[in-house]
Amino acid sequence: MEGKIETLWNEVRELNLGTSGDLDRLDSPPTPLQFLRDFVSQNKPCIISNATNHWPALTRWTSDSYLTSALSSSLVSLHLTPHGRADSLVPSPSSSLCFASAHVQRTPFPEALRLIKNDASFVAYAQQQNNCFQSEYSPLAADCDPHIPFATEALGCRPEAVNMWIGEERSTTSFHKDHYENLYAVVTGQKHFLLLPPTDVHRMYIREYPAAQYRHSPVTGEFELEMESPARPVPWSSVDPYPAPEDREEQLKKFPLFFNGPRPFRCTINPGEMLYLPSMWFHHVRQSPDSRGRTIAVNYWYDMQFDIKYAYFNFLQSIQCASIESQMLAETVQEDFDSDSPEKTEDE
Amino acid sequence: MEGKIETLWNEVRELNLGTSGDLDRLDSPPTPLQFLRDFVSQNKPCIISNATNHWPALTRWTSDSYLTSALSSSLVSLHLTPHGRADSLVPSPSSSLCFASAHVQRTPFPEALRLIKNDASFVAYAQQQNNCFQSEYSPLAADCDPHIPFATEALGCRPEAVNMWIGEERSTTSFHKDHYENLYAVVTGQKHFLLLPPTDVHRMYIREYPAAQYRHSPVTGEFELEMESPARPVPWSSVDPYPAPEDREEQLKKFPLFFNGPRPFRCTINPGEMLYLPSMWFHHVRQSPDSRGRTIAVNYWYDMQFDIKYAYFNFLQSIQCASIESQMLAETVQEDFDSDSPEKTEDE
Repeated sequence: MEGKIETLWNEVRELNLGTSGDLDRLDSPPTPLQFLRDFVSQNKPCIISNATNHWPALTRWTSDSYLTSALSSSLVSLHLTPHGRADSLVPSPSSSLCFASAHVQRTPFPEALRLIKNDASFVAYAQQQNNCFQSEYSPLAADCDPHIPFATEALGCRPEAVNMWIGEERSTTSFHKDHYENLYAVVTGQKHFLLLPPTDVHRMYIREYPAAQYRHSPVTGEFELEMESPARPVPWSSVDPYPAPEDREEQLKKFPLFFNGPRPFRCTINPGEMLYLPSMWFHHVRQSPDSRGRTIAVNYWYDMQFDIKYAYFNFLQSIQCASIESQMLAETVQEDFDSDSPEKTEDE
Repeated sequence: MEGKIETLWNEVRELNLGTSGDLDRLDSPPTPLQFLRDFVSQNKPCIISNATNHWPALTRWTSDSYLTSALSSSLVSLHLTPHGRADSLVPSPSSSLCFASAHVQRTPFPEALRLIKNDASFVAYAQQQNNCFQSEYSPLAADCDPHIPFATEALGCRPEAVNMWIGEERSTTSFHKDHYENLYAVVTGQKHFLLLPPTDVHRMYIREYPAAQYRHSPVTGEFELEMESPARPVPWSSVDPYPAPEDREEQLKKFPLFFNGPRPFRCTINPGEMLYLPSMWFHHVRQSPDSRGRTIAVNYWYDMQFDIKYAYFNFLQSIQCASIESQMLAETVQEDFDSDSPEKTEDE
């Protein structure tokens, strides 16, 4: 079975996605037909330039005073973590890995903006994937388009959610997929994506981790990691594509299908550019800040079609890849053993 | 593995295709965007009415004198078989099944038309899947559109081939798939399709059969079946969805995944209607004649995209379904046994 799954990884690249690891680039927004035919229907990403040149955001949002003045009385959702990794795997109090969500606090925007800087003792990321651009950030509505015209016409609906992301260098988003067609527009700074097609699901080593929540004490400034009770298992990718140098060898051994398989697609999205990130693609996101230390982006989630591609994905995911199973089993035994060892240090 | 494949058959129906076995119907031609979004991208068939109302063919082709006069000096490819089943499985001279192609002869059109009638001692089918409408039948070009406008715009290309089909009741086309997006327009008579999505590939029991060719002697009026030499194996579906009553029980036992799985999608395409038959769908075709005993249709083949859907299909097909393997093995043993028995009668 491994050989057949590996053939699938290679075939989708050779037939359709390309083997270079680079994405198609369009110098201007596609027509709705072109977008649908060449990208959405084929579940194929691309980078689009010159689609947002007319957005006032591209100039206005480089000014802190503009933003704080426009949002002077707005409360925004601020995600706090000790290290910038929210919705990611971290060692739980009992030392095995858990799936940790950020401490979220509704914060007056001017205060939030002050906290999003890379010299703070914790990492703040203003974001909320609940259509926040059109609610918390509504005073900025005129600075961007409320939808992406070519996508709205192609997909036949308005976006289900438009989300704002204001972060700094240390915030990263771990590998995951969304059940949406995603148009991701960068306004200031840069976003760096690693992408894997849905065919590569076994390379993500998805397994269940218990959910946990960071709690941040405003008094002590300390974080506490609280396991959800009753325990709630969250299926999540085990792979960190950028392990610390000292962990690299171990990670390569643990996740050989990821590290030894075809290289992920890579791209950097600059201000004024937009990524079409197709539904069900696994993505990992880092960011580089602008001169003020921040990256600002707006993304548009459109409903996906649950069609034959989705049914095929579920079938593929249901198939056990014996080398992964044995790998995971070996790892579990190793972890159980390690958890008795006081010297153990986890890699996150 | 069988359970997972069966889940796939059901899921693609529950999510996307519907479970009734009926196809979506459109009362007018879709816009290119709608066609691409709702059907091609989703690899989902539909029946379209009122897309060919303006074709002179719909009235002109009901007249034999019009056709013979327009094509009085044309040679057309006429496919001759003893029973109407070309490109299908029939007993070879050694009694095991082979894949038999028709005897093809270039025939003056007026003579061809005389031969296409259900009281002849053999079955004649005027067709050739090599863009014959635009070559052999070019005098009729003005009677139909040279392409289907909404499809050409949606798919971004002109058809790769436009084919003419003039047949009678006894001609059937056995289960197979094409690597094309297919728009199939009926002009006179009716076509009856059975359709299975590409996800159901294991239900087709595709195995290799040796290629053979009918030779028709104009002197004796007899057919001879000649095996290709050297032997050429052709992968083909083993399933006849309409076995003779006396063979039914045996066929049900041989091909339980077909006969006991979800019912195929069924449709009848009437004059003036068009079927969108998505690439890679398995289809079986029968026809009912008009008052002159004939069915005439024109189909448009557009290039398909070899994208993630195609890669998923190849992966699915590469997976062995143990119950099929054991079934096939049992069947082979049975056949070997039967071939020693003088009472043996094959079902075709």
